[in-house]
This record gives sequence, structure tokens and C-alpha cells, in this order.
Amino acid sequence: MTGSLIYKFIKSLFKIPRSLTGDGVRETLAKIKNEHIPNLSIYEIPSGERVGDWIIPNEWNIQSAYIKDLEGNIIVDFKENNLHVLGYSQPINKKVSLKELDEHLFSLPSNPRAIPYVTSYYRNNWGFCLTDLARKNLKDENYYAFIDSSLCKGSLTYADLIIPGKQKEEIFFSTYICHPSIANNELSGPGLATYLAKWLNDRSNRFTYRFAFAPETIGAIAYISKNLKDLKKVHAAFNLTCVGDNNSLSFLPSRVGNTVADKVARHVLNYQNENFKEYSFLKDRGSDERQYCSPGVNLPMVSIMRSKYGEYPEYHTSLDDMEFISPDGLDLSYQIHLKCIQILESNYFYKSTILGEPFLSKRGQNHTIIGGIENDESKSSQLILDIMICCDGSLDIIDIANLLGKYAFNLIPIFHSLEEDGLIEKCE
Amino acid sequence: MTGSLIYKFIKSLFKIPRSLTGDGVRETLAKIKNEHIPNLSIYEIPSGERVGDWIIPNEWNIQSAYIKDLEGNIIVDFKENNLHVLGYSQPINKKVSLKELDEHLFSLPSNPRAIPYVTSYYRNNWGFCLTDLARKNLKDENYYAFIDSSLCKGSLTYADLIIPGKQKEEIFFSTYICHPSIANNELSGPGLATYLAKWLNDRSNRFTYRFAFAPETIGAIAYISKNLKDLKKVHAAFNLTCVGDNNSLSFLPSRVGNTVADKVARHVLNYQNENFKEYSFLKDRGSDERQYCSPGVNLPMVSIMRSKYGEYPEYHTSLDDMEFISPDGLDLSYQIHLKCIQILESNYFYKSTILGEPFLSKRGQNHTIIGGIENDESKSSQLILDIMICCDGSLDIIDIANLLGKYAFNLIPIFHSLEEDGLIEKCE
Amino acid sequence: MTGSLIYKFIKSLFKIPRSLTGDGVRETLAKIKNEHIPNLSIYEIPSGERVGDWIIPNEWNIQSAYIKDLEGNIIVDFKENNLHVLGYSQPINKKVSLKELDEHLFSLPSNPRAIPYVTSYYRNNWGFCLTDLARKNLKDENYYAFIDSSLCKGSLTYADLIIPGKQKEEIFFSTYICHPSIANNELSGPGLATYLAKWLNDRSNRFTYRFAFAPETIGAIAYISKNLKDLKKVHAAFNLTCVGDNNSLSFLPSRVGNTVADKVARHVLNYQNENFKEYSFLKDRGSDERQYCSPGVNLPMVSIMRSKYGEYPEYHTSLDDMEFISPDGLDLSYQIHLKCIQILESNYFYKSTILGEPFLSKRGQNHTIIGGIENDESKSSQLILDIMICCDGSLDIIDIANLLGKYAFNLIPIFHSLEEDGLIEKCE
Repeated sequence: MTGSLIYKFIKSLFKIPRSLTGDGVRETLAKIKNEHIPNLSIYEIPSGERVGDWIIPNEWNIQSAYIKDLEGNIIVDFKENNLHVLGYSQPINKKVSLKELDEHLFSLPSNPRAIPYVTSYYRNNWGFCLTDLARKNLKDENYYAFIDSSLCKGSLTYADLIIPGKQKEEIFFSTYICHPSIANNELSGPGLATYLAKWLNDRSNRFTYRFAFAPETIGAIAYISKNLKDLKKVHAAFNLTCVGDNNSLSFLPSRVGNTVADKVARHVLNYQNENFKEYSFLKDRGSDERQYCSPGVNLPMVSIMRSKYGEYPEYHTSLDDMEFISPDGLDLSYQIHLKCIQILESNYFYKSTILGEPFLSKRGQNHTIIGGIENDESKSSQLILDIMICCDGSLDIIDIANLLGKYAFNLIPIFHSLEEDGLIEKCE
Repeated sequence: MTGSLIYKFIKSLFKIPRSLTGDGVRETLAKIKNEHIPNLSIYEIPSGERVGDWIIPNEWNIQSAYIKDLEGNIIVDFKENNLHVLGYSQPINKKVSLKELDEHLFSLPSNPRAIPYVTSYYRNNWGFCLTDLARKNLKDENYYAFIDSSLCKGSLTYADLIIPGKQKEEIFFSTYICHPSIANNELSGPGLATYLAKWLNDRSNRFTYRFAFAPETIGAIAYISKNLKDLKKVHAAFNLTCVGDNNSLSFLPSRVGNTVADKVARHVLNYQNENFKEYSFLKDRGSDERQYCSPGVNLPMVSIMRSKYGEYPEYHTSLDDMEFISPDGLDLSYQIHLKCIQILESNYFYKSTILGEPFLSKRGQNHTIIGGIENDESKSSQLILDIMICCDGSLDIIDIANLLGKYAFNLIPIFHSLEEDGLIEKCE
Repeated sequence: MTGSLIYKFIKSLFKIPRSLTGDGVRETLAKIKNEHIPNLSIYEIPSGERVGDWIIPNEWNIQSAYIKDLEGNIIVDFKENNLHVLGYSQPINKKVSLKELDEHLFSLPSNPRAIPYVTSYYRNNWGFCLTDLARKNLKDENYYAFIDSSLCKGSLTYADLIIPGKQKEEIFFSTYICHPSIANNELSGPGLATYLAKWLNDRSNRFTYRFAFAPETIGAIAYISKNLKDLKKVHAAFNLTCVGDNNSLSFLPSRVGNTVADKVARHVLNYQNENFKEYSFLKDRGSDERQYCSPGVNLPMVSIMRSKYGEYPEYHTSLDDMEFISPDGLDLSYQIHLKCIQILESNYFYKSTILGEPFLSKRGQNHTIIGGIENDESKSSQLILDIMICCDGSLDIIDIANLLGKYAFNLIPIFHSLEEDGLIEKCE
């Protein structure tokens, strides 16, 4: 099961201290490239460069961090969980009163056993994140706060992969690399992207495939500003996020809402055993579709997810860990995205080449009717006639499958056989 | 009542042994031409000729057929009912065991008093159709099976009629001639077509009218392949089938579903006293609209029926006979199709020629309002104003009637009078 | 409160005996011009001139009228209420039996305390309108019927006002002047028009504003026939009628139904505290939108009303008086129309000038998320991002407000600030 392989790979990335920039991102991308996708290209954009309306910030790296009481007991330690440090914390090495320390602590009273994930990318600050239980145990005394981090000119790191196909039109997968030890809302995406890319790398494809791995938000904006011309060729796009748990299926449509990406995603989701919940782009968007679907870029990008970001209590906390996701959860996401790819690869507009119905008797299909009651054999003949009557050049395979209440993936062989028989032909 | 005349004419055709080809079709068409439509043209297409994806089969004729027991008792006799023989049976003259005979018998256990209608046009076979009651009476002994038929090179016969009008655009009626002694699902169609053609032959018409009489399926495909260019001029088309019984009203829309034929048919059906059931083209089609609405032909063809083929227990059995249909049933079908014709003849897009409302007082229409309560007289004025405000050139008479909740047929005189008054004019 | 000023002004016009033509109209228009809108232009069209399908009738003026019994007691007196005389009554001075008089009396049995408003513009007649109670008190004796009126060649009077703006496209307000002492269904309209014009006269506007004051129906037709070319520039139009009472809010859409006038009116009505009832143009129209929305003119004209004409028992009777309307009722109508104006003045199609989202941190907007829970501060940031993602050039401010579930009036400052920041720009 591919889901197990993805799970195992993700596990090997879990402890790497990723952030918006820095060596954690580089180490993660290097493992993807070295272990799975040798044709991955890795790029750096220097701090201070303008991308879209944004400016690449200084690069942040961190060695260690802790809070220690005056007796030398370590209360909070970055080594144990890299969520313990406020992302982009400035270095600090200072004795502080509880009162002063408290202004730099983040915890979740409503979820007292979770360490929250907090960042301060664009406002200078330092801080520690801890469970609310631990915070309540702090005493009204002095502590040592120590963060060995650096925040200096450097660069933002991202990667992409192009797998050329017969057509220049592209299918685009985007995923983000910037959260530290978070499983569903970080690593499930790059993990799935890696294994989809491996599958496509081994094949000859109709479409050109593009994968982008970049920090969320500013990384996507940077990727757009470097690749806008190529992105105009995107035929369908998928944002890979929150694809790892096993609780539910979620769908976030594109901004426009009725692109071919929306069509194939809704169709495939409708043929899963489980229900899915469709969210609203306007009300519920929250990942890189905010950039890729923005008016000036306007990609047909959808997100097919398990538990959606912001909609599960473990979201953006230490509880979104390797136990929250599962091989089964990842595997269904993998299968669904593969079905979308396979349907899109075969999704053409066909038109009938003949006048009236085909002569099925001649073609080895018999159709006997006794007293108005059709025999079983005729059912597959009927499906062929139903498909043929829809092939008017205005409907693609997914449209026809929707009209006939059938799963497009199962109709593909029939379309291929009708095309071989010369009964239908592709429209240009 | 025209329905009685149609009924009487159908009765005279009932016993003729029609099939896909052969003298039964010729005799039926000859009676239509000689007794009612002298301008009918009759055509033959030789066996072996290709039409669409199909090939014209050999011609089939039959003189007599029976099953006899060894004592000489005739058990099943073609003379009694021409449904007793499997359509396109090869000749046979052979002593057979019950076991062998049984493989060539067709009956309906679910409808034990009915002889089913079965054919084997494109697979060599011979057989007899009988009631399930009669079949159960057969004893385990030997029988003589005798069929005096011929299956040789010949031709497929069809006919058409063109009644030229002021415009080249055509209204097209199609009906089929190929079932032997079946009333609703065969002769009601040609009977209605004959009397609609007689009515139109006597008049000067706006549209050109075309009628086709051909065997179902392959006959329609043949007609299309001979007349495709002319069929491109069709403005509205009606398939005449199952128009004879008195049980219900049924409507099968065109493939596209919103053509002017669909519009006029739905409108007229909405103004009948009875409800009608609208079927789905994709799920329920089954007659020559399968050919005429196919993507390469794409006619705006609908079917206005009584009990729809496949939807009544007598369908495709000996019980679909002259007692199943009635003069009243035929008459309502005749009236409905006539209303469709009459509305289409007057159905133009009009636009108002004046600015604002017409000055009805000047035109002999008075409109007095006392304390906000309009008097009765004003209602017809109001209808005129309602019509005038809709005449913006984008709506035809049926659209306007639908908007106003009125029967288009009743509005025609008002449109004519407004046009005579110069208040509205036709759009080109 | 502007509603009080409008109410006071209307009161000063209430007793003037207006009709389709004559000095009552002139006196009303003169007061509007002299007291409020010096730039109002007043026009006369001579009797007999053709406008649209209509002909300007003779001018009607009246000095006095009464019914007197033979003892000299005045039973019905024009001096008391100018509704007592049938509009356009010919002069009469005659002793009449009750029977003869009765044929010239109009009353409302269903509303016995109301004097109905009745006219006979295009059929020669004379008559008196009275309460049904008074009518029942008449005795079977002779009376004197006296009407001192004149009906001779003269002219029809109307007025308009153009307030030039930066753009040639016009916002058009129409209202009618022809009913005598009727408050909601007459004077509320001109009163509101006067105060909207005063407000606009004091400002520099984007759109050009046009106001027309004319007798209902024939006056509107006359106005159209004199100004058709200019009316083609109308961007949105409002018919001002029945805007004075305090009972409800009503909306009559334009003929086309989805113009920018419909859009802004529905939007503003949706953000009032009260519900509103939407009527059907086709079934419920009844004022000058019948002319302005007619096919040859086709203005995007809507009516935002309080109690709609024809829908309240006081309509077209003496009970539609100064007590039926109120300063509060007028004020809400004033505020609603002002909001429509203000939104239209700012209603552009904007497109984002940047790729992806704006960098709000840089722009002084902060967005901190702790464990998936957004802080309050982020809500306004979110609104900016929501607006920006909608600025694709295909949606105007009202469309975007509708998508986001916000009141467009409140979004205007945000759009202005985003435009100043260079993040969005107007589409041509």
C-alpha cells in the first residue's frame, strides 16, 4: 500500500526544524530529491528581494532553546519538540521575572495538553509555546530564557519539478514546506506530492506535470512571481494539504468554482464510499489557493483534503502529529488524486462520426427484446448507445459520465474502444 | 370527428403483414398514397447498400406458417395472427421434437394471454411466438414446423411527402412502418401522419412540411443518409408513435431539450385538460428520435404520445390491437398536433413600434378605474398592454404566452390585430 | 430630519387642484422651482400634438363645482375637497332628477367613508365623487348640478432638471404631477424628488442627474418622445411614487429585472431594518415604469416604495391624505434613495494590481494566529483579503458586497483606501 510508504517517509522528516526559511527547509527538500525525485530543482531567493507585494525576510536558523529555573531545571526544551519556540524568535539569553516571561509565552487554555504552533515572521519578538498545563505550573520566580537563533540576510528556499508530457498544458500540484513538527497540516502534503511525482516520473503522460514545494503564502507568491508565464498553461491544479488523517473527506473548490479541476475532483469524490464536505472558497480558503487563485493568477486550483485545516482541534498544535495521520488516510488521498490524474489524462471532447446509432449487431452486440422486456445482454449495448448519443462534441468524458450517472474512470475503456472502432473522434 | 376517420383507416391496414422490408410495407404505403395522399413519393433501397453505420438487409416475405401436430391439428397459425411468426424467420419444413421446437418458441410467462412480438433481423433464426397458455398445452411429442418465407436480395421501402410553404424552413413529421398487427405502437403513427398531411395539403402554409414513413431504426437511418442536407432546414420535428390509446399523455423531449419543438409541445400539453408525464430523452428514448436527434443529425424532434412505448403492459404484444386504441384517443392526438402546427405557423418574434404604451382610448378600448378597482372591461385592455410590454423582439408568441400564463393559441388573434394596427412588427 | 422638511413642503401643495393639464400643475411646478430648485426647466406641449401613440388632450381648468338641493343646501362642494369632481368634467349647470344625477355619481360601497378619485380624460362626461354614506342620504328629488370648468385648447405642462456630472451617463428620477389632493400616490413623489435634487445640486457628482416631473402616463410618454436620445444615456432610473407612508417597504423591479438599478435597490433594501416585498413587473406594474421600461425605451427603472399603489385601501381615495403619510415615512424613503445614489457614485469594477495577497504586515495590518484561533484584530485584515480576492474586474462593489454578505455602503471606504494604496485599480 503506497499509503504506508508515504507514512514512513513522512516520519523520517518529522523532527526537522522547518520554518519559512532556513536549513530545515533545505534538509527536507534534499531528502525528497535524494531519496525519491532526482529531477527536483531547488532554488534560493535572497532576503530583501521583492516578490509580488511582499519582501523576502531575513533567514532564520535555530540551534537550541530552553527555559530554565534558577535551580537549573529545564522547564521547556526545544530539543523535545521544535514547536516550543515561537517561529522566527530573536536570540535571547536573559534572566526574566515570571511577569516578563509570561508576555512571551503562548498556550491554549481551551486545549491544555497541546503546544500551540505560533510564529512572528514579520514583527520582531521572541517567545516560547507550551501546554497550558505546563504554563500553570510556573511559579512566581525568576527564570532563564535562552534562544540560540540567528536572523540574518540569507535566502528563502523552494523547489519544483517539471515532467514534460505530450501536451504543453500542465497539471499542477502545489504543497508547502514551512511548519516544523506538524504532520497533517504540513508533511502529508509533501509526502503525497513526492509519491504522485514518482508515479508520474515512471510514465509517458499526455499532460506536462508541475510540482512546487515552497513555504506557504510568501513561498507561493514567490513561486508565482518567478513562474507566472508558465502557470498560464495550467489546465488543472491541486493544492496538497491536510491529506493524511482518516477522519473525513473535504473539498475546497477553486475561486471560479466550475473549472475542470473542480469537475474532476467533485466527480471522483462522488464515487468514493465516504461522503465529503464541500467548503466555500470565499469563506473557508486558507492555504496556497489564496495565492494561486488570486485574480491576477487565477489558476483552476482545488484542494481535496481529509480533515481540513482550521476544522479539527489538533490543527496548528503538537497534537497534529504522526499519530493523528495514518497510512490508510494517506492511501485514500493518494488513490483519489491518482484517479483525478487518470481521468484527466483520458478526458477529451468526443463527437460521433456516424449518422444515427451504430449497428451493434454487426459489431457483435446483440439486442433482443421480447415483449418489451430487454435481456441482460442489452444493458451494455444500451450503455454504448447512451455514450454515443452524448458524443456531440460539447461534452467531455466527465460530463457524459455525470449525465449517465456512471463513474468516468470506468467509462474510459469504452471510449477508447469506440474511438478504435472509428465511431467517435476527438474534437480539437 | 377526425379520430374516427383515422381509426377506420387504421383498421383497414391492421392485417397487412408488415416487417422491416417486403410487400407488407409496400401494400401499406400504397393504400396511404392511393386513398389519401396522392403526392406521396415511394422509394426503394437495395439490399446490401450501406446507410450510416448500417447495411440494408435482405428482403423478407412470408406466405404462410404453422405448427401442426402429427395428427394434422394446427396448433399455431400465421393466418390467425401475423405476430405468430418470429420476424425475419428463415423458411422451415421439418418434423421436430418438442425439445427442439421449444428452442424456437417465444412466449411471455408474465403475460400468459399475450402473443409477444419478436424479431431476429440480423441473426439467422426461425421461430414462433405464442401465448404462454398455448405453449404450456404442448405435449412431449413431435410436431411439424412449417414456415413458407423467403429471405433474399430485394430492397427496403420507405416514403415521403413534401408540402412546400412560403418559407424553406421545414416542420418534419416522422413515423414508422415495420410492425405487423400492432395498433398503438405502429399504425396510430402512420394514421395520424396521413390525416395531418391531408389537412396541410389543403392549405397554404408558412412552413414547408415534410413527412417520412419508414421502417423504424434502419429506415430512419436510411432516410437521414438520403436527406441529410434537406433535414438541416428543419425548424421543428415530431415523431409520431403511440398516439392512439386513451389512457394518458406522454412527452419525450428532444436531446437538446429546449428547442422550439420542445417549447410548443410543452406549451400545448400544458393547456390540455389532462396532465402529461414528461420523460427523459437520455433514459427513456426508444423510437426514431434516437436517430434524428443523434449528434450528427441533431433535429429538434419531440414525441407527443398517449401511453408511451415500453410503459404499458400491452406493448409489443398481440394485446396492442384495435381495441387498445380508440377514435377518442386518436382524436386528441390529432388536435394536439394541429395546435402545435397552428401555433408554429403564427409564432414570430414581435417588437413594439411605439414609445410607451398604446393609446387604447383612441382605439376603442376604455379603462376606468374607480378607487383602485378596475372594471371588467379593462381586463382585455390589460392583456393588450401586457402583450405590448413583452414585444421587445427577444420573445416569440409562445414565450410571451408562457410569461403571461395564457394559451398561445388564444393570443394569436390579438397579435394579428396589433400588427394590423401597426403597433407591433415582426423581427427578421 | 429631512423627512419633516419634505412633509412640510408637501402640505403646502396639498390643496392645489392638479389634473392632467391646467393651472394646478403649473402652480405646483412653480412652487418647486421658486422655493427649492431654481434650475428647474418648465415646458408646455400644445393640445393636439402627437406624442408616441397619444395625442395631447385639451387643457382642463376648474373654478368651482357643487351639488345643491332645491332649498339651496350645498350637498357636495369642490371647495371642501377637490376630489369631489370627476377629473376632466365638462361644465354643467342644470337641474337634474336624482335618477339622472345618480348616473354621474361615483362612490365606493366597500369603503363608504372615502371619496373616490375618478377621472374621464378621454371620454366626455361630467360627474361628482362622494362618500357612499353621503350618496345614500340623497333623497328622491331634484338637485342643481353645477361645474364651472373649461376644456379647451391649451397645453400639457411638465418640468425637468439636469445636474451635470463628471460622466455623461445619467441617473434618472421620474415622478408625476397630476392627482389633486392625494398625498402618498402623488405628492410624496415630487416632494422626495425635490429634496434629492437639492442634495445633488449642492455637490460635485460622478454621474449626471436628471429629474422629470410630468403628468402620469401621457406626461411620461411626452417626456420620452421629447428626450429619447438623452434617455439612452441612463445608467439607472428610479420612479418616485408612494414613498410617504410608514407601513411597509415595497419594490418593483425593472422589466428586464437585473439591471444595475435593480441590483443597487435590492441591495440597499436588504440592509434596512424592515423587510420589503418584491412585486412582479409583469403582474404589478402600474406607474410610469410602464412607459420608461417599455421595449422601445427600455430604461433600467425601478420603484422603491412604501405602501405600493393599488395595494392599500386608502389608494385613489380621499383617505390617501396628509395623515396617511408621515415625516418618518418620507425620511426613510429619502435615506434609502440617498444610499442608492451614494453607492452608485462609488460603484466601479476593480481589479487587483498585485499577484497573490497583499503584504498586510508591511501595511500595518497584523494577523496573528494561535492554535488556529484568530484574534479579533485579524477580522478587518480578513475583510481586506476577502475584498482583494474578489477584485477580478468582473464584479462591481455591489456584487462583491453581496458575495461577502456585507453592506456595500460600508465597504466604500475600504475600496477607496485599497485604490489609494495602489493594490486595486478601476477597470475601464
